[in-house]
Amino acid sequence: MPLKHKKSENFTEWYLELVEAAELMDYSPIQGCMTIRPRAYAIWEKYQDLMNHKMRSDAVQNAYFPMFIPQSFLEKEAKHFAGFAPEVAWVTHGGNEELSEKLALRPTSETIMYHQFGKWIHSHRDLPLKVNQWCNVIRWDTKTLKPFLRTREFLWQEGHTAHSTEKEADEMTLRALHWYRDLCENYLALPVLMGKKSEGEKFPGALYTTTIESLMPDGKALQCGTSHQLGQNFAKMFDLKFKTAQETEELVWQTSWGTSTRLLGALFMMHSDDKGLVLPPRVAPLHVVIVPIAKEQSDRDMVMAAAGRVRLALEAAALTVHIDNRSERSPGYKFNEWELKGIPIRIEIGMRDMAEQSVTVCRRDTGEKESILESQIALKVPALLEAIQQNLFEKAKDFMKANLRPASTIAELTKIMDEQKGFVFAGWCGDPRCEEAIAEETNASIRFIPFEDKPAGSCVMCQKPSKHTAFFARSY
Amino acid sequence: MPLKHKKSENFTEWYLELVEAAELMDYSPIQGCMTIRPRAYAIWEKYQDLMNHKMRSDAVQNAYFPMFIPQSFLEKEAKHFAGFAPEVAWVTHGGNEELSEKLALRPTSETIMYHQFGKWIHSHRDLPLKVNQWCNVIRWDTKTLKPFLRTREFLWQEGHTAHSTEKEADEMTLRALHWYRDLCENYLALPVLMGKKSEGEKFPGALYTTTIESLMPDGKALQCGTSHQLGQNFAKMFDLKFKTAQETEELVWQTSWGTSTRLLGALFMMHSDDKGLVLPPRVAPLHVVIVPIAKEQSDRDMVMAAAGRVRLALEAAALTVHIDNRSERSPGYKFNEWELKGIPIRIEIGMRDMAEQSVTVCRRDTGEKESILESQIALKVPALLEAIQQNLFEKAKDFMKANLRPASTIAELTKIMDEQKGFVFAGWCGDPRCEEAIAEETNASIRFIPFEDKPAGSCVMCQKPSKHTAFFARSY
Repeated sequence: MPLKHKKSENFTEWYLELVEAAELMDYSPIQGCMTIRPRAYAIWEKYQDLMNHKMRSDAVQNAYFPMFIPQSFLEKEAKHFAGFAPEVAWVTHGGNEELSEKLALRPTSETIMYHQFGKWIHSHRDLPLKVNQWCNVIRWDTKTLKPFLRTREFLWQEGHTAHSTEKEADEMTLRALHWYRDLCENYLALPVLMGKKSEGEKFPGALYTTTIESLMPDGKALQCGTSHQLGQNFAKMFDLKFKTAQETEELVWQTSWGTSTRLLGALFMMHSDDKGLVLPPRVAPLHVVIVPIAKEQSDRDMVMAAAGRVRLALEAAALTVHIDNRSERSPGYKFNEWELKGIPIRIEIGMRDMAEQSVTVCRRDTGEKESILESQIALKVPALLEAIQQNLFEKAKDFMKANLRPASTIAELTKIMDEQKGFVFAGWCGDPRCEEAIAEETNASIRFIPFEDKPAGSCVMCQKPSKHTAFFARSY
Repeated sequence: MPLKHKKSENFTEWYLELVEAAELMDYSPIQGCMTIRPRAYAIWEKYQDLMNHKMRSDAVQNAYFPMFIPQSFLEKEAKHFAGFAPEVAWVTHGGNEELSEKLALRPTSETIMYHQFGKWIHSHRDLPLKVNQWCNVIRWDTKTLKPFLRTREFLWQEGHTAHSTEKEADEMTLRALHWYRDLCENYLALPVLMGKKSEGEKFPGALYTTTIESLMPDGKALQCGTSHQLGQNFAKMFDLKFKTAQETEELVWQTSWGTSTRLLGALFMMHSDDKGLVLPPRVAPLHVVIVPIAKEQSDRDMVMAAAGRVRLALEAAALTVHIDNRSERSPGYKFNEWELKGIPIRIEIGMRDMAEQSVTVCRRDTGEKESILESQIALKVPALLEAIQQNLFEKAKDFMKANLRPASTIAELTKIMDEQKGFVFAGWCGDPRCEEAIAEETNASIRFIPFEDKPAGSCVMCQKPSKHTAFFARSY
């Protein structure tokens, strides 16, 4: 039952086999759309809980806005519309009638939300307004479907806030980005780098866009979350004014920020191996699977009783546990199956273990086995889960560090992109023409400019003095 | 700040004013669609938690399926398609291209889900398969928007299961219905009646449909949830076969069941009054608001300190608490505002209370005030919340009982519908022509036939011997 494709040999085929075989997704009859199966959806629910917790701590409130956006709304902010128009799906008929104005299916909800904000914001007392929405969004991408990473419908959260000052909006933009970083690094075990997008890569209609980017095992960068300072652009278009304490009228400052189910794709891709899925314990829906092993029917009751005791002890330590007591499957079959499905710890209990009052505990990440006294289970298994969590994060961090290289000429940059990929940091003069030329030459884009930006020698393209140190990579 | 319209005088206007003034919803620029604001969405999240808990206990797993349904899929089950076709919204364009096959936005997901089930069900070991989805659905209703009760987009959960036997599917159908009844009665404080739909009112494509129905204060019935035994109709169309333990091949038996955000409408309508929203404490996002009252600036610190102590004591009892310390608003203004917004308990703390080491506690449902010793707070407030919960349920139950009447002639039935509405139970011969004639005459439909169905005298329409006792009502 191990996967047919090897992660190190044919990464793309391996990933496609993984997500289907581990029952994370299934292809649907609609081109570009997929089904998120329960094993993956449960992780999304964990992410929702964690993110909701962050947002609640900052008084961000969940709400739900219509998924339809009138064409005229989407067109209000010109750059915004230009950015999304090629990917919008349109509803033209309701029942048997043609609609008088065609309706876009939300690719993002700025325009429909901010129209409503106009009815809710009157005074400085109504600010800050902080709303989040968990929903489906539609982007009619014409590129090939890549499960979780590129689908025409996906799930996400989009936070939208309005503030009385630019500074507050700046702070909110960064606060959301730091939430994302914490969730990626400390829960999904995905190390990320942070920074600002270039003008060319920023969100359509934003003042600036900040991003967290992780590096996938094939050396391509994956944008894990973005947070936008929208300035007053949308406020102007939707007339979002408020009365200050001094009775003057001002436009609000806004932010929006989002993360989506593509995070699940990053998670699956990063940690899994040739045996199947590997999950960081903090987001694994099931922590431990127990496989009782009894060759003789007469041993079965004893072994099952021990399995029951172990489960109780682990559940008391707030872990989720499954006992695989199927009689029609061999232990070997079960080991393979639960490895494929990414359960962080497997516990085997056989007669030899019982004789020693112990159980055999096997880590999914390293495959290491150890014997643990039954009386020590509730102490040692949680510690082992933490060790797995740390190990996955450290491994991913080491990989990112090892694939972070400088370049001072376009020849160097091209060579790295062709041979090793990864992140390359290099001087950039700030001219979008150089940015485009580099992209054409190397297929790599500026993923971000670090917040602690400094000019670094000369521009990797034109060799004029650089204004920024930019981080380049090929990307998903 | 009390509502302009009175519940007893102009029910519809009162409801429309209520949901907008209490910040539960807002109208959107898309006809028939609305925004669910945070105060209402938080209740939906509570409902989700409760329902997820029920489903987990029965191994129903959450997942997510595409919202697009190819026309050819929707047409596979003829009755199903006929039932939904007039209300389907169609996507015809993606980006700038016309689609080769137009796509329906899901009005319900049987067809898209069961296509996937076909890939997952092979053996009796794959059964039962139990999946649930929380999502938005679209029904392009041409009737007038009624916030929460009738909108073109709404949120719901739809559970879908496949079983190896008819009996198991029968049991699942009823199990889901009982979950719904428990959530309605014991959390939303909405008493309901249960039964089967008539052939004419059942879900398109189902073998039979079961329902829970509650009675709104205007005497109209509201369908709160339905659960369908689908038989093998969809299994035939989607070729859902499994290999039995005896190696024979059989079609699965299926169920589907759903509840939606219209439950929120029922909740708001049922318990609220002329001052605004009234919420059963078990689903109220905020249980207690504390209003510190200090005329003199010098008293303010003491009163605020007491408010802080009370909050801590209540939070320790797992209640959610807000202290309204706005200095620019009078206590009277605050009382009105929190009554409008439906906080179950208000606690006032002034210098007179402090002198007696007590606080004044006011119930939202009855308006009754009592003085409670500060030292008793953590004991008495939770008990008071339970009393409110019970009182709301009992009141609603009394109302339903008082509006449950028999009729033996169509003249009687018509008279009750014209003068009092409510539920009327009467004999029915089982002929759909009588069902239609009654609907035409009285504007009332058969809401359900109780599970413990008995013939009752003669048919209220044709006076031939009755086959059923049917419950009639006008409905939302």
